[in-house]
This record gives sequence, structure tokens and C-alpha cells, in this order.
Amino acid sequence: MALGQGAGMFDPVEKLKEYISYPSVSADPAFAEGMKGAREFIGGLLTEIGFAVEYVPTELHPVLVAKRKGNPDWPHVIIYGHYDVQPPDPLDLWETPPFEATEKDGRLYGRGTADNKGPLMAHVTAVGRLLEAEPDLPLNITFVIEGEEEIGSHNFKSFLRRHSDKLAGADFVFLSDTGIPSAEQMVVTVGLRGVVCFEVELTNAKVDLHSGMYGGVLMNPIQGLAEVCASLHTPDGRVNIPGFYDEVCDVEPWEREQLKQLDQSEAQFAEFLGVKGFHVPPGYTPFEAIRFLPTLEFNGFGGGYQGEGSKTVIPSKARVKISCRLVANQTPESIKPLVFDAIRSRVPAGLKVKITEQHESTPYLVVPPDRSNTPKDQPAVLARAFRATHDAVSEIWGRAPLYLREGGSVGLIADLKKELNLDAILLGLFLPEDNLHAPNEGFNLAVMEKGIVTIQEILRRTAHP
Amino acid sequence: MALGQGAGMFDPVEKLKEYISYPSVSADPAFAEGMKGAREFIGGLLTEIGFAVEYVPTELHPVLVAKRKGNPDWPHVIIYGHYDVQPPDPLDLWETPPFEATEKDGRLYGRGTADNKGPLMAHVTAVGRLLEAEPDLPLNITFVIEGEEEIGSHNFKSFLRRHSDKLAGADFVFLSDTGIPSAEQMVVTVGLRGVVCFEVELTNAKVDLHSGMYGGVLMNPIQGLAEVCASLHTPDGRVNIPGFYDEVCDVEPWEREQLKQLDQSEAQFAEFLGVKGFHVPPGYTPFEAIRFLPTLEFNGFGGGYQGEGSKTVIPSKARVKISCRLVANQTPESIKPLVFDAIRSRVPAGLKVKITEQHESTPYLVVPPDRSNTPKDQPAVLARAFRATHDAVSEIWGRAPLYLREGGSVGLIADLKKELNLDAILLGLFLPEDNLHAPNEGFNLAVMEKGIVTIQEILRRTAHP
Repeated sequence: MALGQGAGMFDPVEKLKEYISYPSVSADPAFAEGMKGAREFIGGLLTEIGFAVEYVPTELHPVLVAKRKGNPDWPHVIIYGHYDVQPPDPLDLWETPPFEATEKDGRLYGRGTADNKGPLMAHVTAVGRLLEAEPDLPLNITFVIEGEEEIGSHNFKSFLRRHSDKLAGADFVFLSDTGIPSAEQMVVTVGLRGVVCFEVELTNAKVDLHSGMYGGVLMNPIQGLAEVCASLHTPDGRVNIPGFYDEVCDVEPWEREQLKQLDQSEAQFAEFLGVKGFHVPPGYTPFEAIRFLPTLEFNGFGGGYQGEGSKTVIPSKARVKISCRLVANQTPESIKPLVFDAIRSRVPAGLKVKITEQHESTPYLVVPPDRSNTPKDQPAVLARAFRATHDAVSEIWGRAPLYLREGGSVGLIADLKKELNLDAILLGLFLPEDNLHAPNEGFNLAVMEKGIVTIQEILRRTAHP
Repeated sequence: MALGQGAGMFDPVEKLKEYISYPSVSADPAFAEGMKGAREFIGGLLTEIGFAVEYVPTELHPVLVAKRKGNPDWPHVIIYGHYDVQPPDPLDLWETPPFEATEKDGRLYGRGTADNKGPLMAHVTAVGRLLEAEPDLPLNITFVIEGEEEIGSHNFKSFLRRHSDKLAGADFVFLSDTGIPSAEQMVVTVGLRGVVCFEVELTNAKVDLHSGMYGGVLMNPIQGLAEVCASLHTPDGRVNIPGFYDEVCDVEPWEREQLKQLDQSEAQFAEFLGVKGFHVPPGYTPFEAIRFLPTLEFNGFGGGYQGEGSKTVIPSKARVKISCRLVANQTPESIKPLVFDAIRSRVPAGLKVKITEQHESTPYLVVPPDRSNTPKDQPAVLARAFRATHDAVSEIWGRAPLYLREGGSVGLIADLKKELNLDAILLGLFLPEDNLHAPNEGFNLAVMEKGIVTIQEILRRTAHP
């Protein structure tokens, strides 16, 4: 296989191996040198292919901004990536060293190979080859590569606010930090759920009490919180909060149609998860519900004694952590009052309630051109890039991409939309077997090469309408 | 005050100080020497007043058995006590060293002063004085002093089974390991609740799942367990399990009457606990409910992420620890199937349920003579001892004792009843301010002396009908 053999161009697999060798774990200050190494390595590579590189400080890890100077009238694409990786723990489950990339059977193993160093390398390589082939390509390109994606992109929003001038005139965002179901099927992610996270704490007595001396006369905060939690869903699995679904956008027939082409089996899905069955609101398959419906999930519940054996105590407090996933056109601002009011109104008399807000993000949905029966106005360059994506994928992969929403939340996509009003084309590159965030993370090198060719072609066609 | 000044007799306060100096923490193997020291110290004291002392091995800490040889026809009382104490932690909250007894303002401070070394010293002293005054007292006395009360008396039941011969012919048990509301009011505890402790675990998926990728299609085990828990009480505070109250014995008017004499205020009780109000089944005050009604309390609930901030996970499992307090005439054997069946039948479909039994004990109730309108046959010696208690307390304390049930459970009392069919006279000696199990445990020395005189008189009158 002729991987990365553009004339004069670097070999992306060799470069990726070197990139992996910098242990850029953003969560742990002990890896500060690895963070710097990874940042400067990718900065050096971008300099090599002609970009002006700048490291923009944030409160924690700098954001790398690399610009190709061009003509302001050209289309302008922002290519997003992140140079940080998840911690490699548990180390003893790795079959190869996490920060020494190891090639085996057409795959490259190491922390960050799939998330997100490999996919980012595909973008850098594609741009390098494209500019080598056509140095005067009429396309403004800005790489924005952050170092805090794995810890929540907390400083990315303020980066966007403070440095919007650096991204002025951009038409859309292009990135690969999503997945595909197989090496044969490209997926363009068009929607992400938002999220609202919060904690509810109920308190009764001022200290834990002996369940013999005081048992049977107080509202136990666990009982109270259980009553509240039990009330938050209907028996058929819907969220039982008035108005919760009011803003949920209708699912259009093309969306269900696209999803059906994934050809997933509920039985296999249940077996994979180890569950006897699903608990889904009426009218939706599990695959649809994950993408099209909002949720209220309990992420943690704690109160009283949880060690070995028994302790006959009546707890003073009980807490539950809840996350609501949101879908278009819900917003954290519209949903929080509904949920918080419902919870407060259902707390049994006498218990004190405290609700603590945690992080949140807005749901995201972009409708590619030629999909919806009721298309919305879309910037011309974005529409052109979507069409370029559709055509390039259809030709190179031998079949059209699927346009799917995902159930997860990617705050930075919502932030780019909210702060800069930019939509994104999310071109999937990692596979289900790539073990993201887990030991033995790996990346399929054939997919990488096919990705490079595809990205190159998408950018070329976006530049040349 | 002439504390312990029986002619030729030891001074109980000085002896108690020495007894406290042995750190007999049964929970911690590091205190083995303190356990041995305390055991042999109290054994030596009993030898000194004429008892034949034996240390009966168990699987952990030996039981001290001390017998006064007498005439088999005499009445036979077992005096129970325990030589072990709670750990002294947290040490930094003690104002005096826990194992150096310190006298101040008529109180003796130190770990075990109130629970149970002081009250036991009162019994030993009373017996010593009594035998000094009347060496031929027609009363068989056996001290049974265990070393595992603070860790659940787990080996006491098998001690009773294996060594019932050592206790053969006993008529009743006499002990002081309960409390009184003030230094002026004696209380004889006539009832204790039983307890059944268990844990319920619900499982759905085989591992924790990402709440974005999988949220909204599975029965969350926290939701399932919250539904089960919420179902276990009615809104008016009763346990919502068919048949749960069927065996509960009627509360007789004299019991409510005795309790009223405690003159407790609900408002003060609420303030003490830091609660806005009580949640009690209809027809009962909180003070009655604690003593006369069974309960189902949640002691702990755990599932998912409970650390700082948020983690968007759908937990695989959720667990709840439950304890049911039982009252006469319920039994663990009758209640467990009702509770377990109710829980199993209320688990939402698809979730796996596991119930793990923990410890249990039977409720206890003895009705003193002349109380009930429907008196039961009672052994003559027990009835005589109860009358002796009533008269001695009335004379020495200037008012009759109150006969009250307590909300807690004392397994060894249930075991003595179950294994040897022995009832107990529980003469309270410690005060609300004595800080049992807490830092700065202390014991009122005037109550101790009044207790010694009272115990001496009760035993004398029991011997001489």
C-alpha cells in the first residue's frame, strides 16, 4: 500500500508515530512536557506545509491557530482538532506501550491514534498534499487545535469569544472526531445532543441518626429522593415533566430512512450491552431514541452507608446526579426551569432541597442540502462543502455517506455555532473497534489513507465550485 | 459524698478508674492486650468478692463467667455486662485522655465509663457490699461478661448454645446497659425492637455506559431502585407491604400512660434533630412510633458516580441497604418473606435483582407484673425481682420507675430469651449527656452510687421474698 507517498510529502504514518510519542494527557499536570511536545510537533508540521502558526494562551493549555494567508474573497474553512489525549490508565491492560505507536495488521496502536491524533494527521496530510499539488488553491484554511477536548473544552468558549478576530470570515468548520460503523461506510454526523447536568441534594436531620433510636418517625431523605426520582419518568419511558418535549423538533422521514440503512439489530445491540431488553418511549426504536429524543438519566445516587455489611443509620442527606440530554430545538435555558420546578414541587414536605447546576451545552443540528423537504437557507459555501462531501465520499468510498445524528454531546460544536454561528461538517474516521478512551486504542491505516484522499477531495471541490 | 465506703470494701470509683485504664477495644486486634487486661481486671475483682471465675473461649474474645456457689434451691440471677468498649476515635475531640479516667464536677470521663464499665462496676460493687453485709445471702449469682458487645455480640449466641450448662437453673437476667432521661428518673426497659438488615442490588447493563451514546433507551437501575424504594411507604408514613403489620401486638393503655410521664415535647425533639417536623403513621406520637411500631428504613443508597462534579454515565448497578425494625410479636422469619417478595415483585421488568441478607434479631417484650390488664403467667422469681425493683427504686429514687420500650435492638437480650427462655430486668444508669460511643464519654458518679444502692436492694429483696 502506498501510504502517504505524495511526492516530497511526509509519510503520515511515520509522522503519526512521532506525534503519538508525545504523551499529551491534558488531565494531569505531570504531562505538561508531553502537552508542549505534541503541540509544537503538530505546529512544526503545519509550518512545514506553509502555515503561520501561533500558540494562543488560555487559562490552561494553549490553542494552536495556524493560518494559510490567502485572498479574503476565497472560501474559508476552519479545520478543528485537539492535540490532547485521554490518560492511558489502566496501563497493565495495554498490549503495547501507549506512547510508542506500534503497527500491526494494518492498524496503528497507541494512545491518541484514533482520538484525535490520527484523524487530525489525516487532515494535515490532506491539506499538505493539496497545496503541494495546487499551491495557489483558492481556499483560506485555518487550523484550530485545542488542548483541552478530553477535559471538557472548558477554555474553548472563552478562546472563541476573545479571539473571534482570528477566525473572522470563516464559512464553516471541518473536522474528524466522530465515528463510522465500518471501514466501508462513511458517516457525516449532522446532529448532537445537548446536555444539562445538575445535582439534587435533599436534607432532613442535621446529622445521621441511629435507625433504632429514631427509626420510623422521619422522612428518610433516601425515601424522599427515591419518590422524586421515581416520578420523573412515566411507565412507558418518557420523561414525566410538563412541557419537556414541547420544543423537540419533528424527525423528518429522511432521518429515519438514513438511520435504517445502518442495518442495526436490536437483539445484537441488547446482547452487546448485556441487557434483556430496551425501555424506549412509544414510536421509536432504540436507535432512533438515542438520536432524536431528549432524556433524563440518573448518573449517580448516594446517601447513607455504602460500605460492606450493614450500618443502621438514617442518613441526613441524599444526593442524585442527573443529566438531561437535549435535542434540537431545546435549549438549556428553556429546559432547566421546567426540570428544576418539577423536582422542587415533588420533594416531600419537610425536606430541604438544594439544586446545584453543573455543565451544559446546546444541542446541535445541521440539515445538509438536498435532504429536507423543507430546506432552510444555508450559506452558499457550506452548501457547496456538503455537496463536495457527498460527491467525494460517493466516488472514493463507492457509496454515499449516511447523514446521522449522534446521542452524545460535543460542547465545542455547540460553542462554534453559538459564538461564531458556524456549522460543521463532521466526517467520521474512527471505527467501533478503535477502543477510544480505553486500553489498546488503535486506528485503521487504510481508513486513514482513504480519509486523507477524501478530505483532500472535499477541500479541492469546496475551493473550486 | 461517701462513695463506695462499705467497711472493708473497695472504692468503686477508684476501681472504675483502673478498669478504664485498660483500652479494651474489641473492634481492633491492636487492642488485644487491653482486652486481656480489662477481662482479667474485672475477673480479679470478682475473685476478690468470692466468685469462681472462668474465661470461656469463643472464636474471638472470651466470655468471663463468674459464679457464686450456693444452694440450687435459691433463686438464680445472671448479671450481664460487657468488658469491651467502642474505639476512642476521633481522638482530637477528647478533652481528657480516653483511657485515663478523669474526675470533674461529679462526673468521671473516659472511654467506657458509661458503656459499660461504670454500670458493670455498680453491679459488682452492689454484689460485693451485699455479700459483705450478708455472707449467707440465699441467692445464686452468675456474672456473664462478654467482650464483643460493641461489635455485635456475634459469638454470644453460640456461647449460650454451647455453654447453657453453665447458666442452668437461672431465673432471670439483670443488667444495666440502657439509659434514663435524668438523674432523678429511673427507667426499666421492658421492650426492644428486633431488626432485619439486608441489601438489594439491581443490575441492568453489564458495564457502566455513556449517557450520551446510550441514554434514553435502558431502564436505569437507579430509576428502577427509586421506584421500588418509593413504593415501600404509603404517603402517611406506613410501610407499604401487605401483611407487614399483621403480627404487631396491641399497645396497652399502661404503655402509653408510662410514656406520657416522660413529658417529652415534640417541638424540642424536632429542634434537637434539626428537622422541620415528623412523618409518623396516623394515631401515634413520634415517641410512641419509635417504641411501638415496626419500620423500614433506608440506611444507604449507592449507584453510579458520586464524586465531585458530573460524570455522564448510566450505572450498571444500584444498591440500597435497608433495615426493618420489628416489634413484638413479629419475627425475622415471618417478616423477611413479606418484604423480599414485595421488593422482587416491584422491580421493573428487565432488571436483575439480588437480595443479600445481613444480620437480624428478634424483638423483645416483657410485661412487668401488675401492669397489664391481661397479665401473662410469669416465673415467680422474675415477678418477685420486678416487684423488688419497683419498690427499691420507689424508695431510693423517691419515685417509681417508668417501664418503657426502646426503639433500638439489643440482640443479646433476644438471644437470652430465645436460647435460654430468660427474661431480663434492664435497669437504666446512663444519662443523655453521657456521650456513649462519642468523644468525652462520661458517667455521673452520683447516679452510680444511687445505682449501687438500688441494685444491692433489688438483689436483697429478690433473695428474701
